[in-house]
Amino acid sequence: MIELFFAPTPNGWKLTIFLEEAELPFRITPVFFADGGQFAPEFLAHSPNNRMPALVDHAPADGGPPLSLFESGAMLHYLARKTGRFLPSDPRGEARVMQWLMWQMAGFGPMLGQHGHFALYAAEKHPYAIQRYRTEAERLYGVLDRQLAATGAHVAGDDYSIADMAIFPWAMTHKAQGFTLDDWPAVKRWYAELRARPALQRGLSAGKEIFAEKREMDDAARARFFGLKPA
Amino acid sequence: MIELFFAPTPNGWKLTIFLEEAELPFRITPVFFADGGQFAPEFLAHSPNNRMPALVDHAPADGGPPLSLFESGAMLHYLARKTGRFLPSDPRGEARVMQWLMWQMAGFGPMLGQHGHFALYAAEKHPYAIQRYRTEAERLYGVLDRQLAATGAHVAGDDYSIADMAIFPWAMTHKAQGFTLDDWPAVKRWYAELRARPALQRGLSAGKEIFAEKREMDDAARARFFGLKPA
Repeated sequence: MIELFFAPTPNGWKLTIFLEEAELPFRITPVFFADGGQFAPEFLAHSPNNRMPALVDHAPADGGPPLSLFESGAMLHYLARKTGRFLPSDPRGEARVMQWLMWQMAGFGPMLGQHGHFALYAAEKHPYAIQRYRTEAERLYGVLDRQLAATGAHVAGDDYSIADMAIFPWAMTHKAQGFTLDDWPAVKRWYAELRARPALQRGLSAGKEIFAEKREMDDAARARFFGLKPA
Repeated sequence: MIELFFAPTPNGWKLTIFLEEAELPFRITPVFFADGGQFAPEFLAHSPNNRMPALVDHAPADGGPPLSLFESGAMLHYLARKTGRFLPSDPRGEARVMQWLMWQMAGFGPMLGQHGHFALYAAEKHPYAIQRYRTEAERLYGVLDRQLAATGAHVAGDDYSIADMAIFPWAMTHKAQGFTLDDWPAVKRWYAELRARPALQRGLSAGKEIFAEKREMDDAARARFFGLKPA
């Protein structure tokens, strides 16, 4: 059984999407930011970077003790290798998927995260920072669009992979961040195709009942969450 | 033969360090930012994200056509798998290395990059942004320090791995960014141990003759480099 430390965010949904697509049984252990759950000692034991998602594989292939893992990209890679799903096993195919997974982890995710922070969340509006990240976000959407136009299918080629699962939940932020996919027709086509997948939809609904009661963050929780002061 | 599209930056050095440590023959194709080399069509064919490093493996294991790859983390993973070096092949050991490689790709690299931009390069000084990234950088150094104190050796455990090679060149920015490793004794110990490795030193010197003539960036090149306007 996979135990997933989760909150409903783009990085969290990467994993619920994978787990639903791969039909791998899992249970959710919620991480409540409003309570500072990402700093609880029992969570830090699995995720020393105090970030969710994290996972514990209670039945690892080697029969050894439970295996803890953090970083959504490493978790996707581990589960793909464990199940043999959504990641080719030949070096060429694997490399193609890994480069787009890394592109999401190192660029598309962090830079959309920074744009979201400065454009939507930061109390103080700083035009230079907003423009910096907006320009970078548009560049990245353009890179993704050219790639999806070239493959005509998924980001790493014909097959749906963990790279698509990593990118999709971040592309879901486009509307909130003031972008329109009309500017990137290949992204729009791909987005609609993925959005129609029942397993992906189940991934996006995972844990909804647990998080149904909206917990507002107070000022201290916001400061912790946005890294404005040390935990 | 590995062809490495390279400039002397932290992300570039990850690869020259690996190639020297693994004693894998390679040749450098320089990418000159001052000339906008990252936007040249012959480069974009290998690196659609217009970022260096990138590589071409002219002798891939499957005997097929040359294999192009971008994203330093994906390149490290590919070369580690190709050579069987610096990445365990068992799922547990591999996962441990991959999570710290992803931590560098998604956090330590991008966030130090943002801190460097706002604290050192941006013409306009914005205290909020500088503080945001300084706090995050200090948090990340603290996470690294606790991990290295726990292992007493390398970031993913006893063995030197691609995760160390990815993190080290970014830790090299500490002085320029106004940090001191005295604040993180386990990082300081690890840093000194790696710094003494002859192969790592060769990696840091790779291509020095090519880049010996310092090419200053003009305003247009700077704007492209810092993403202040589309290429």
